[in-house]
Amino acid sequence: MSSSLERSRGRRIRLVVAYDGTDFHGFARQNGLRTVQGVLEEQLERLLSHQIQVEGSGRTDKGVHAQAQVVHWDQPYGPPGDRYVHVLQNYLPRDIIPVHAMDVDSSFHARFSVLRKTYRYTLCRSKVPSVFDYRFQWNVSDLLDADMMRSASQDLVGKHDFTSFCAAAAPQQNKVREIYRIDIWETPLNVYIEVEGSGFLQYMVRIIVGTLVDIAAGRISVSAIPDILRAKSREAAGQTAPPHGLCLWNVEYPKIYGGGVLDLPSPL
Amino acid sequence: MSSSLERSRGRRIRLVVAYDGTDFHGFARQNGLRTVQGVLEEQLERLLSHQIQVEGSGRTDKGVHAQAQVVHWDQPYGPPGDRYVHVLQNYLPRDIIPVHAMDVDSSFHARFSVLRKTYRYTLCRSKVPSVFDYRFQWNVSDLLDADMMRSASQDLVGKHDFTSFCAAAAPQQNKVREIYRIDIWETPLNVYIEVEGSGFLQYMVRIIVGTLVDIAAGRISVSAIPDILRAKSREAAGQTAPPHGLCLWNVEYPKIYGGGVLDLPSPL
Repeated sequence: MSSSLERSRGRRIRLVVAYDGTDFHGFARQNGLRTVQGVLEEQLERLLSHQIQVEGSGRTDKGVHAQAQVVHWDQPYGPPGDRYVHVLQNYLPRDIIPVHAMDVDSSFHARFSVLRKTYRYTLCRSKVPSVFDYRFQWNVSDLLDADMMRSASQDLVGKHDFTSFCAAAAPQQNKVREIYRIDIWETPLNVYIEVEGSGFLQYMVRIIVGTLVDIAAGRISVSAIPDILRAKSREAAGQTAPPHGLCLWNVEYPKIYGGGVLDLPSPL
Repeated sequence: MSSSLERSRGRRIRLVVAYDGTDFHGFARQNGLRTVQGVLEEQLERLLSHQIQVEGSGRTDKGVHAQAQVVHWDQPYGPPGDRYVHVLQNYLPRDIIPVHAMDVDSSFHARFSVLRKTYRYTLCRSKVPSVFDYRFQWNVSDLLDADMMRSASQDLVGKHDFTSFCAAAAPQQNKVREIYRIDIWETPLNVYIEVEGSGFLQYMVRIIVGTLVDIAAGRISVSAIPDILRAKSREAAGQTAPPHGLCLWNVEYPKIYGGGVLDLPSPL
């Protein structure tokens, strides 16, 4: 291991990790609970014999997954960025997967430098869950009309006050966010909902998905979204979709900080 | 629940279950350990207030999954077969999924009536595991030449003494089995190996897969299989592939007992 502990030129490291959120109490560190941030800090400390503070691009709720969460930390010494994927494979549990790592300028911040984020939600229309996907899909017995969901979803695109689409107890004062894009597509068994935006409030994607499911099932009118937004009340929107269907899909930064995660070279 | 506890006409029930083997100590009941058979018996007893003995089509090792394992049991009273998928969804943990159930003639036996079984093994050629599939794939850093594996595998098809391809401690006296078919196909990231046979010895599919990987990596000659079979010694074959890439894919019975699992009507 000593060869990989050579002094790194850059002191700030940017790491992309994927995780299966099933067995974590969310991303954010909490005393006595298994969290993604907590495990990352604990294992970096074991590797570097030095206390490390990890900053993430944002929190994910208990049970939510990530295909690409981005974090950074500062280290007084340690492996260069491009060695970290290899090194961390021997430190991290198998439900946290290091995907890409690089040295990055100290002006980079995993949260403050974010340009946009993409979340993907996966619904399954089969009554019988798939053994390979039950951790990552919400099985909905309603017959879901994807066209109806797509039509209703377009009223959410743009800059809005999303008070109706976030947890009543959400800590943020300013509830205005911009959604750049909502794409909905389907296969025989699944419906996928991808939401790209400047940033997201607590439960925002899950309440959007739950409301679209209620619309597809006829419990809420397909034209109700503008009224729900205007109401500025969590009561006005539909149900909150469960966390396990949700995945933080991509976090994008300016090109000087390594750009978007999915633009990275294939791991092959 | 009382309506579903009406007397069933048939007393023997055939159930198809899928399971994620990650958190089980295999299929077969073992005192004090979480096993698929143990959980099924425990939950059927809770449902029926009666001790139930579950018979499976065969064991699967610790960590091996099933897309379609078949079991049967006899009950003095209880729901009719076609209600069981619905009823058991409220009793089984989410890593055991009831897929299909039916009343079946008492001459049916989950193990003795088997016509053939199919196992599927999934290899992944990416160094970075996928967060959605890490529980179900073996990540192999060797560059796997699927054509070479396919060519070598055909020497295993047919009736052979598979002593070289089973655990040295395997309990069965007679090591002759017939493999009907080995199919190997690939996608950019994965190589799939499907083996269909009359029955399988302990670790047999995993040693076949491990040996084919050793052949693809150049550690064993592509023409060595006939010699390995003739040696009748576990030492002659290659490595044992890890259990988590393996899945019991299908179990087939004569048509009078409900045929093959994958012929069943879609759950949609």
